[in-house]
Amino acid sequence: MNFEAELQERVSGIEAILRQYLPAEEGYQKTVLEAMNYSVLAGGKRLRPMLMQEVFRLFGGKGRLVEPFMAAIEMIHTYSLVHDDLPCMDNDEYRRGRKTTHAVYGEGMAVLAGDALLNYAFETACKAFNMPEAGQSIDGLNRCAKAMSILAGKAGIYGMIGGQTADTEAEELPEEQVTQELLLFIHENKTAALIQSSMMIGAVLAGAADGQLEALERIGSNIGLAFQIQDDILDLTSSLEVLGKQTGSDLKNHKVTYVSLNGMEKSAEQVRRLSEEAIAGLACVAAQEGMPQADTRRNDFLEKLVEDLITRKK
Amino acid sequence: MNFEAELQERVSGIEAILRQYLPAEEGYQKTVLEAMNYSVLAGGKRLRPMLMQEVFRLFGGKGRLVEPFMAAIEMIHTYSLVHDDLPCMDNDEYRRGRKTTHAVYGEGMAVLAGDALLNYAFETACKAFNMPEAGQSIDGLNRCAKAMSILAGKAGIYGMIGGQTADTEAEELPEEQVTQELLLFIHENKTAALIQSSMMIGAVLAGAADGQLEALERIGSNIGLAFQIQDDILDLTSSLEVLGKQTGSDLKNHKVTYVSLNGMEKSAEQVRRLSEEAIAGLACVAAQEGMPQADTRRNDFLEKLVEDLITRKK
Repeated sequence: MNFEAELQERVSGIEAILRQYLPAEEGYQKTVLEAMNYSVLAGGKRLRPMLMQEVFRLFGGKGRLVEPFMAAIEMIHTYSLVHDDLPCMDNDEYRRGRKTTHAVYGEGMAVLAGDALLNYAFETACKAFNMPEAGQSIDGLNRCAKAMSILAGKAGIYGMIGGQTADTEAEELPEEQVTQELLLFIHENKTAALIQSSMMIGAVLAGAADGQLEALERIGSNIGLAFQIQDDILDLTSSLEVLGKQTGSDLKNHKVTYVSLNGMEKSAEQVRRLSEEAIAGLACVAAQEGMPQADTRRNDFLEKLVEDLITRKK
Repeated sequence: MNFEAELQERVSGIEAILRQYLPAEEGYQKTVLEAMNYSVLAGGKRLRPMLMQEVFRLFGGKGRLVEPFMAAIEMIHTYSLVHDDLPCMDNDEYRRGRKTTHAVYGEGMAVLAGDALLNYAFETACKAFNMPEAGQSIDGLNRCAKAMSILAGKAGIYGMIGGQTADTEAEELPEEQVTQELLLFIHENKTAALIQSSMMIGAVLAGAADGQLEALERIGSNIGLAFQIQDDILDLTSSLEVLGKQTGSDLKNHKVTYVSLNGMEKSAEQVRRLSEEAIAGLACVAAQEGMPQADTRRNDFLEKLVEDLITRKK
């Protein structure tokens, strides 16, 4: 099977898991449940649950313990988009050619649907504690607890929400005050944090050691940053036809980006470097102490996925 | 010490715990951290963490395992107020005589601060897993996991957010469509769910049995409903001078309440009945199997607190 077909198969599998965990649309609170499902089932690459599942496999994870966390990370990603699109934030009426949640359900209901998705993400993740794979063992319960801490930590004020806050404020700053350091803080938190979280949760649930989690945190940071710089490059070099969305918007909006600060050549070089580091890291992160290097577990699909993500042309 | 002095002492203790768990206001995301702290430290009765702590004591709980959950439930209560006050929801500029979060920090930052508090509530609760009181024992870890499930469940779509959704929609309905059943759904979820959650978490962390949790769920439901009906009664019978807020607003807004549906006499009778049931329940819920009734644990302060809460004149 080629990569594209494998990718599509995995997306279908992830969407089946999502549907299994999403709420039934019934009861007096039906409208918020409809708005939640509308938001989550709006399509998308399902990148975060996919990374989580593949890292879980890379570390030899078996069974379904990872599934509630896969649903949870996608709910968190989705709530962040729903709130980001609100009139008092980015005020977007469309996303991927489909009306945004507040455009369909009204602003108040979109606030509630975002809250509901964030809360339901944790409610869903809690289900892992009662799965047979958690096994009512200290080790199993500790893995779930650690996964929960990573989920909350990377989504919050020292992760995604922190980055979102800095990004919102940076838009109001005079250009010269948007420094390289501030920009890296935004990318590291707004973009990379949920990618790190996905990979670390997959690993911890499969029983990875602390040193391996730290390695994955660095790899996730590289992937997030490379992804973001590539996004900025494409905004300058691609076209509406190829990308399927308006290009040149950063330049038009005088937005400070990694490319505007460092130039195109250095930026492209940086993407290459980050990407190579990430893939080299993934090729050896699952090495086990005392085992010959040749026996290190690998996940070809995961390596290809990361390469594809970073070096994409659209 | 009299009840009022004890109450004040407990509020101070709870605020010290809150301050310990709230974030330091530093870093590129400083503004959202300030907005979170501004919202949580705006005063209030601290009823939910107080109920949690007192039920924890009622069941013989020792140590500090309950503290992260006390902070978490107050953060969840606070985020619900921050989002409820938004221009696209109730549009309130003041709460308890102080500017609301969006009136000080702007609407976008208030959305983020609410999200941040909800997320940080779970991040804070996760800290319990690593406390010595969780003891790295299956029992300790299971208690934390169960407390986390109750926290998420009662705050979410089958709890507070569910009630909030139904309430928002009920305001748009013609009066005759707001039935007794819908009204009870709203009170049970919007008002009672966090009270139930507080009491159940206090109990589960102290090692209460499942049957005792169910009893506390009923008691919490009675307290929440009685509290809400008393609120509606005071809105009709009290005055600005006594209550410190405008009265008669339900009548003016043609709002359907338990009192408008059932009449004043039946409503007052219902408050009495619910209150008696709740206090009678609290007096025996901590009975242990095989122990003589006289040895049942009691918590006088808790019983007085609940009585005071329901039969208050302001």
